[in-house]
Amino acid sequence: MLTNNHVNAPTQFIEVGEIRFAYRRLGKKTGTPILLLGHFRANMENWDPAVTDGLGRDRPVILFSNTGIGASSGSTPDNVLQMAKDAITFIDAMGLQLIDLLGFSLGGFIAQQVTILRPDLIRRLVLAGTGPEGGEDMEKFTDEVTKAAINEPPLLEDFLLLFFSPSEKGQKAGKEFWNRRHLREAGIEPATTIEVMGAQAKAIADWGIPANQFLQLKRITQPVLIMNGNNDIMVPTKNSYLMFKHIENSKLILYPDSGHGFLFQYPLEFVEDVSAFLNKSF
Amino acid sequence: MLTNNHVNAPTQFIEVGEIRFAYRRLGKKTGTPILLLGHFRANMENWDPAVTDGLGRDRPVILFSNTGIGASSGSTPDNVLQMAKDAITFIDAMGLQLIDLLGFSLGGFIAQQVTILRPDLIRRLVLAGTGPEGGEDMEKFTDEVTKAAINEPPLLEDFLLLFFSPSEKGQKAGKEFWNRRHLREAGIEPATTIEVMGAQAKAIADWGIPANQFLQLKRITQPVLIMNGNNDIMVPTKNSYLMFKHIENSKLILYPDSGHGFLFQYPLEFVEDVSAFLNKSF
Repeated sequence: MLTNNHVNAPTQFIEVGEIRFAYRRLGKKTGTPILLLGHFRANMENWDPAVTDGLGRDRPVILFSNTGIGASSGSTPDNVLQMAKDAITFIDAMGLQLIDLLGFSLGGFIAQQVTILRPDLIRRLVLAGTGPEGGEDMEKFTDEVTKAAINEPPLLEDFLLLFFSPSEKGQKAGKEFWNRRHLREAGIEPATTIEVMGAQAKAIADWGIPANQFLQLKRITQPVLIMNGNNDIMVPTKNSYLMFKHIENSKLILYPDSGHGFLFQYPLEFVEDVSAFLNKSF
Repeated sequence: MLTNNHVNAPTQFIEVGEIRFAYRRLGKKTGTPILLLGHFRANMENWDPAVTDGLGRDRPVILFSNTGIGASSGSTPDNVLQMAKDAITFIDAMGLQLIDLLGFSLGGFIAQQVTILRPDLIRRLVLAGTGPEGGEDMEKFTDEVTKAAINEPPLLEDFLLLFFSPSEKGQKAGKEFWNRRHLREAGIEPATTIEVMGAQAKAIADWGIPANQFLQLKRITQPVLIMNGNNDIMVPTKNSYLMFKHIENSKLILYPDSGHGFLFQYPLEFVEDVSAFLNKSF
């Protein structure tokens, strides 16, 4: 039995300088912890309990809200570099010396940047539904995607469009995710604000400006697992293939009939694949 | 303990019409069997015991030599279609009604064709180091690859170039494979002949002729696992990505720092990934 799981883990706080970061610990008490970095507009409620508790079976899982997000104080920066520095501030303040890092979407941009800035902190890296700085077709969403992505408040219909395959199976899985995602009813974080959305949108657009910056990826030498759905309409899937080609020690896994939210569509398979990668001793 | 493993499984024979097919059974006695289809010039000795016995932990494994190969009689056809028909003849003669099929390289071409011709026979399909009919840069090997691929007899140096990453780790893994591959000393098959090589070379070249035949792949509806190394110099890795894009229910896994023989470079990880895919019930 988990002492702390997704639904009952208390929100805790740690203060560093002027920022009070909100975080939660769940899963196993011992082992290398995995820190999860979430998507555009997400707070800690935007994870799937099937994913967080699934990963927690083998290791400690830490969720946190970066500067200005959810219950954390401060003002969300408008660039990935500062977001990464803030994440490092949190990691150091927590006294974590070696972690696994899982970044999803915008969280994957930040995870790459954290690993480049502080390789000593990161044992293994998981990049889910994300892309390299200056990747392909990442500068701008289509109008349909933009409309759903900035809807306030975000509705089930928006997630079904943005995160899940339009197939019957994909849409069904999306509704099941939506139910799991709302299992935690007590002690939830405030939703992210319009100001956070604006700052993050600028950070995402800037990260996507085409540039020959793949050389940065050569600086990542840890084992990396890159994952996505076969048809991601937010960060096109070809960017996962691009990262795979430029990160030396990387493995690529792409899933059928799925999009940006493939990890919430196939939570059991995702947990199995990530756990195998993190547990691997050969 | 395995009753029959890679080293001690006896070579058996089954006659159908004018052909006497050589085969071996190893691994578990019960469960859906997996049939393995090998590479250019391979006979049953060209598998890695770490792969065959590894897969055999959870399921029966069947190796066989198609028409004209190794200890099988007959004349190897010069086209993939007939090779697939011959494989189906063998499967039917064995009384197998539902199998998993793993095709490596040329074996992967045949495996696709078998699945298209007789979808009723195939539960799940694994395509390793292979490509679609009319894929990209598949029509012709480079001169360096050709020279090593047709060397008679095939030497360790040829396998190290063709199958393994030029990195220190890749070359070391290649030598370890070479030792495992020779663990079976008694009851081994005759090497494939120059005539077999010629017929297979024509089949491979014809399969690689650029054509808009990806529509064929839409006819494969089983769960498919597509796998390769990141830099396959025999069947370029981009063809795995192409198959993934055109086979609806497919999952793609690509490995770092490896080539065509990635499955022999990372036998433990390969077995873990294939077994997870074949065992999956969700």
